[in-house]
Amino acid sequence: MSVKIFLNEDEIPKQWYNLAADLPSPMQPPLGPDGKPITPEMLAPVFPMNLIEQEVSQERWIDIPEKVLEILYRWRPSPLHRAVYLEKALKTPAKIYYKNESVSPPGSHKPNTAVAQAWYNKEFGIKKITTETGAGQWGSALAFAGAILGLEIKVFMVRISFDQKPFRKIMMNTWGAECIASPSEETQAGRHILDEHPDTPGSLGIAISEAIEAAVTDKSGKTRYSLGSVLNHVLLHQTIIGQEAKKQLEKIGEKKVDIVIGCAGGGSNFAGLAFPFINDKINGAKIDIYPVEPTSCPTMTRGPFSYDHGDTAKMTPLLPMHSLGHDFVPPAIHAGGLRYHGMAPLVSQTIIEGLSTPKAVHQIETYEAALLFARTEGIIPAPETSHAIAVALQEAKKAKEEGKEKVILFNMSGHGLMDLSGYESFLSGHLHDYPLPEEDLERAHKAIEGLPKPKVVKTGKW
Amino acid sequence: MSVKIFLNEDEIPKQWYNLAADLPSPMQPPLGPDGKPITPEMLAPVFPMNLIEQEVSQERWIDIPEKVLEILYRWRPSPLHRAVYLEKALKTPAKIYYKNESVSPPGSHKPNTAVAQAWYNKEFGIKKITTETGAGQWGSALAFAGAILGLEIKVFMVRISFDQKPFRKIMMNTWGAECIASPSEETQAGRHILDEHPDTPGSLGIAISEAIEAAVTDKSGKTRYSLGSVLNHVLLHQTIIGQEAKKQLEKIGEKKVDIVIGCAGGGSNFAGLAFPFINDKINGAKIDIYPVEPTSCPTMTRGPFSYDHGDTAKMTPLLPMHSLGHDFVPPAIHAGGLRYHGMAPLVSQTIIEGLSTPKAVHQIETYEAALLFARTEGIIPAPETSHAIAVALQEAKKAKEEGKEKVILFNMSGHGLMDLSGYESFLSGHLHDYPLPEEDLERAHKAIEGLPKPKVVKTGKW
Repeated sequence: MSVKIFLNEDEIPKQWYNLAADLPSPMQPPLGPDGKPITPEMLAPVFPMNLIEQEVSQERWIDIPEKVLEILYRWRPSPLHRAVYLEKALKTPAKIYYKNESVSPPGSHKPNTAVAQAWYNKEFGIKKITTETGAGQWGSALAFAGAILGLEIKVFMVRISFDQKPFRKIMMNTWGAECIASPSEETQAGRHILDEHPDTPGSLGIAISEAIEAAVTDKSGKTRYSLGSVLNHVLLHQTIIGQEAKKQLEKIGEKKVDIVIGCAGGGSNFAGLAFPFINDKINGAKIDIYPVEPTSCPTMTRGPFSYDHGDTAKMTPLLPMHSLGHDFVPPAIHAGGLRYHGMAPLVSQTIIEGLSTPKAVHQIETYEAALLFARTEGIIPAPETSHAIAVALQEAKKAKEEGKEKVILFNMSGHGLMDLSGYESFLSGHLHDYPLPEEDLERAHKAIEGLPKPKVVKTGKW
Repeated sequence: MSVKIFLNEDEIPKQWYNLAADLPSPMQPPLGPDGKPITPEMLAPVFPMNLIEQEVSQERWIDIPEKVLEILYRWRPSPLHRAVYLEKALKTPAKIYYKNESVSPPGSHKPNTAVAQAWYNKEFGIKKITTETGAGQWGSALAFAGAILGLEIKVFMVRISFDQKPFRKIMMNTWGAECIASPSEETQAGRHILDEHPDTPGSLGIAISEAIEAAVTDKSGKTRYSLGSVLNHVLLHQTIIGQEAKKQLEKIGEKKVDIVIGCAGGGSNFAGLAFPFINDKINGAKIDIYPVEPTSCPTMTRGPFSYDHGDTAKMTPLLPMHSLGHDFVPPAIHAGGLRYHGMAPLVSQTIIEGLSTPKAVHQIETYEAALLFARTEGIIPAPETSHAIAVALQEAKKAKEEGKEKVILFNMSGHGLMDLSGYESFLSGHLHDYPLPEEDLERAHKAIEGLPKPKVVKTGKW
């Protein structure tokens, strides 16, 4: 029995899949501060026009530039593994597969879009890209892409992660990128927060504000901003994951997947794996699709669907998404990549349509799952990834109770070799759960009060 | 042009290659404290008999057990990369290839033998394995293998690395292994050293003494010791690397390799890549083969060829090898895996025969090479691996000067994600070179005074 399924070089997908073309109900547009839809031109100081065009594209398939493919091919197609040792430990009749995105040099799925974004920026004549990072996966990935493509990269890293994970900064420096803690003194947005909350652990919302400000205030005109998740074009670039997984399952004659799982902070790794399967679901396939988040930052499971800003300083347009409020500062859980107040509008729309069903898990359960995975499958997962694993275990156990041979697929979005302090806390019994208190949810609702409300548009088919 | 060459599952080598069968001059046997050759029975308290048989085998090809292959297949065959971006940066006419062993879950070549050793121990009824580790690559690999195969693992980690790299311990713990700093209070050997040198940074020689003592004094009879390098059977298990590389080069029509390079601490990753090519050299091929070591621990380039103990407390047999003396404590360079006083007897014999030619490089040169590699090829190498890269760069530059299109192959033996503090020192300008002072060499000669001298047996053909 094959425990790992490879694809050859010529089997790598040549196009990205754009779910926006197939969504049964149309996406609602991003809005400006005046409540009117944003035009592509208004985004021009922030992103290069070629990426803005992708952001608003309704084309179902978008060609991956050959030069981008050449770089992706350094570690792609990524292997698909059958988790035979995990299955055995669980004594489950379920078949568990995982797509192993940890094999990229920065160790996660993030370079799939980092390379694409860096390439499009370079094509457009951009010399420098600013960005933010939570746990550091995204910042590292963009640093990596910048090194290969010869672009200057500046990363604002959420302070709590910057302090918890000092090696992430060195990793980015090694690839030639600059990395500073956010909030910083370098931007107006950062100084403003530091004045009010000098001890803030920071948040992705704040770091995004700083990175955008640093890009748009750069006088050379050759600097743009890049986001590692949430936006349509970012999710688009990740769909290579799910397309590969489908080919790999086909290759071994696995005809039907019952359950698809990915952790979701901004939504990109979940979307990357799940969107090609959501396409199948739209076309009639019966698949349960689960984006998974922490109970401490339960954007999808408890946050209202609203227009909200993507950042704390309200520099981004208003996006139609599930949100805990743009000023939300989540507790310091180890899964830094899942500490984001919002959700990708495309993912939110699949939730509203019933095409995906969000789940939330407690931190300790995710580490229990991670440990079992590490000791059976041999790969130490990132704390974010462990959220997907926890739900895979829940489903495998359920399949056992029901005596059903279900096929479960999850995204092993990254390894945890840079995140071992969380494991230390867990192994020494110092880890806590942080379910979101009710009053924080009230505060979240308050934060979005007065903002425009998107219509909940759904066909009701799922 | 293909920048990465894969092999399919069915192309993975099914046998290990044993250079001992082909060495033109015979290996001299290990000796006991009485100066007489060691018998297999004498090693029985230390190793399981099935591995002892492999250690003394003269068979050219040894079948890899199917269960071992099944586990290796989780990350093997490892990719072979053409370093096109590095070549471009160097403007060299040379073609540079590297075998990427960093894709294993612990991040190095070490699991190739860790899995095999754990499997043979388990077959023999062993429940627990003790070992030592320098930088932590080996300890992590054995912890990984122990998790998958269900064996208890205890690792004595050289104190300097234990302190420099706290995350290595957590990594081993995550896989369920125990890891303590060496010298420790747990063994007589450790206590003895601590009495005399309470502030010692430790050494592999000391840690080996402790691990062997812990194994042979265990009263259950179900504990054995495992070594991550040096011994014949360990090198044997690594030859899957070179065999794969040859198949991969064949696959793209690369008929002749001119230069093969690997870093060498105990010699296993070098041997793993190089031995199948040394076989070609014995059969008439013209290949330059370079094991590379640090100038601070110049075992092969400046150490005498002698019988010496593999460990500080003289618990191991006397091995015929290049050695800086069993009590040598090298300076605290970041390449912890290359801080070993001895060399694999098989590698030493290839040096004596002229089948390989050792080189030594300074620490700063290795980091310069590593940075260029990380910023072109995108993979951050382990500090040990950077020694091989430094010599690859030297050879690529020489090829440029000579205007020759040479084919260079090196072993990218591991990634440096767990070793980023060295990069920080380098980037901040705090790194030093530590060439071995002449008086240390005199001391080395003194340490082996009075030990039996192996004959220098060579055919003189190379």
